[in-house]
Amino acid sequence: MNNFVFYNPTRLIFGKGSISKISGEIPRDKKVLLTFGGGSVKSNDVYNQVRYALKDHSCTEFWGIEPNPTIQTIRKAVELLKREKSDFILAVGGGSVLDATKLISAAGMYIGDPWDLVLHPALYKESVPYGTVITLPATGSEMNKGAVISNRDTHEKFSFYSTYPKFSVLDPVTTSSLPPYQIACGLADTFIHVIEQYLTKTGESPLMDRWAEGILSTIVEIAPKIREGERSYEYMATFMLSATMALNGFISMGVSQDWATHLIGHELTALKGITHGHTLAIILPGTMWVLRHEKMEKILQYGKRIWNIEDRDNEKAAGMIIQKTADFFTSLGLKIRLSENGVDRETIRVIKERFRKRDYHLGENRSVDAEITEQILNYVY
Amino acid sequence: MNNFVFYNPTRLIFGKGSISKISGEIPRDKKVLLTFGGGSVKSNDVYNQVRYALKDHSCTEFWGIEPNPTIQTIRKAVELLKREKSDFILAVGGGSVLDATKLISAAGMYIGDPWDLVLHPALYKESVPYGTVITLPATGSEMNKGAVISNRDTHEKFSFYSTYPKFSVLDPVTTSSLPPYQIACGLADTFIHVIEQYLTKTGESPLMDRWAEGILSTIVEIAPKIREGERSYEYMATFMLSATMALNGFISMGVSQDWATHLIGHELTALKGITHGHTLAIILPGTMWVLRHEKMEKILQYGKRIWNIEDRDNEKAAGMIIQKTADFFTSLGLKIRLSENGVDRETIRVIKERFRKRDYHLGENRSVDAEITEQILNYVY
Repeated sequence: MNNFVFYNPTRLIFGKGSISKISGEIPRDKKVLLTFGGGSVKSNDVYNQVRYALKDHSCTEFWGIEPNPTIQTIRKAVELLKREKSDFILAVGGGSVLDATKLISAAGMYIGDPWDLVLHPALYKESVPYGTVITLPATGSEMNKGAVISNRDTHEKFSFYSTYPKFSVLDPVTTSSLPPYQIACGLADTFIHVIEQYLTKTGESPLMDRWAEGILSTIVEIAPKIREGERSYEYMATFMLSATMALNGFISMGVSQDWATHLIGHELTALKGITHGHTLAIILPGTMWVLRHEKMEKILQYGKRIWNIEDRDNEKAAGMIIQKTADFFTSLGLKIRLSENGVDRETIRVIKERFRKRDYHLGENRSVDAEITEQILNYVY
Repeated sequence: MNNFVFYNPTRLIFGKGSISKISGEIPRDKKVLLTFGGGSVKSNDVYNQVRYALKDHSCTEFWGIEPNPTIQTIRKAVELLKREKSDFILAVGGGSVLDATKLISAAGMYIGDPWDLVLHPALYKESVPYGTVITLPATGSEMNKGAVISNRDTHEKFSFYSTYPKFSVLDPVTTSSLPPYQIACGLADTFIHVIEQYLTKTGESPLMDRWAEGILSTIVEIAPKIREGERSYEYMATFMLSATMALNGFISMGVSQDWATHLIGHELTALKGITHGHTLAIILPGTMWVLRHEKMEKILQYGKRIWNIEDRDNEKAAGMIIQKTADFFTSLGLKIRLSENGVDRETIRVIKERFRKRDYHLGENRSVDAEITEQILNYVY
């Protein structure tokens, strides 16, 4: 096991009717900025519940945070925050609203342009305190300090790290009206968040392996039910809890991490606008196949414990396991070839060139450079 | 899934050499009270590492916290804390030292007798901040707000809840010289902490079930290696992490809990001085057998997933699963019958009478009263 430090002070408030509890979580004297996406929270009653809970708080609203939130939108929110002198932010929506809010809250304490904080992490010092009401299980943003921010001018998408939400409200009822494609992307996102912290080296932590496998098994078990339209409270609650636990540090204690699939996926979103979870489902089978030799032991453990696949021929077993993984994403309703998703060979060339310029060496062994990335992309073309 | 609130702000600092990091965790201007047990930390170098790390801090030492820490000893520590005006406490030792420190830190902010805080939870308001260096994987006290305190005068043992450690240092190297009996009790304690949060109702949270089973499987896997004397860093690190994760709230989100075995076990410690983890190993097979009908579904799930035991006859399967569980505790080197541990029928009568007077109705279904407790104790006699 590697040495590690674990710390996660976010208060999770989980279950039906929990939105009403936010009034007790935000001091009454705070000036609250509410951040929202495009308006779906108005159709599913979340907006009403939030405003009712905060009826005695002073609130300002910022609307219009888009999927893959952009620095262009965030700049406007920061202007509003500073003008209103808001000293608490409540993000209400999916991972995009939460991610944007992390940068808004950080930029609220910074005098320059918010994009500086993305490009130069050392500039980050502190954040305006914030909480979240998450309505889409996927990114895990509700219980970590990470965000991914896009720049519309440069077609770039970068990670940004600030601080944890003070609290996050998870009410599974809020997910009942999500479109099937969002659900599919959320399931894939959750699954692959776990894979990035798991499919690396064997024997680093038997316990973390079991916990990672526990989330994977749970997602495999509930996905077909949810896919078939069975959006019962219990299934959606399990999905929501799984998504949060997949990326809050609970399964990464003392183990190596990968994240190559994510970094490649971000480029597909930045260049082609493909939804984040979907990009991961496209890329992962390629990452697994191209890196199967260095990841072989863990691929075999994963295949045996999650899919019950074993074979005396490791190469053959790995092939079957990777196929099974790809089939799982297909079963969610996702098209998992680049060519099926409007990505051409030119895009592969651009990504390769970007990775070469950034001198990327990704993955737990730092082996994923521009050349390997091209191989991965060609494999899933 | 039941509604829940999860919150755990303890910073875990895990791995070889981590004790050196405590100096950065305690502000330099704090007056630190160091709390210790009987002196084993002097023979295994932990004491030296702590004092070296805090060489620039102002420190006072309190020695002599006993296993099953008593209010009598705690009173003396609180006197010292108040006299020295200490404003940070660092507990160094096993679960007993940590448990005692929780009450010392709470009593440091209370004007009356510390035992008041145990008997009347509503009196608790706040604690002197504290951190821990844990040297014995077992109680999970390093990452929760619970403690168990004994009263030597009344032969009573009660739970007490205050606040979380600011940080806990877990260096598996510190466990290398632990006696085999302590290791056995720690493994049993960890296993049964999980059981109390797991062996209740089925279907409440598939994910929490997987995580609980993940800890159980890990303990079952490493126990024989550790028992055979293989105290490698990796095995002890896995044991240490498992013990912490077994009782920090991570596996109890949204699920029912039991704790009857614990409450009965506490009486065996209070009346007969048997080590806590050992009392649990004695009682659990009795709890499982006497409550097998109400717990049947979960017993079958546990038996199948942990021990690979299945049978078309539920009663027969339950019998085999309970026997296997008892055999596991025996394999740790523990004698698991009351009569083998110096407990007579009179003790059973005393416990029954205490439970009757306290009007206990324990377990997830509140079905464990004085009569059922007597049945459990007679079964394991």
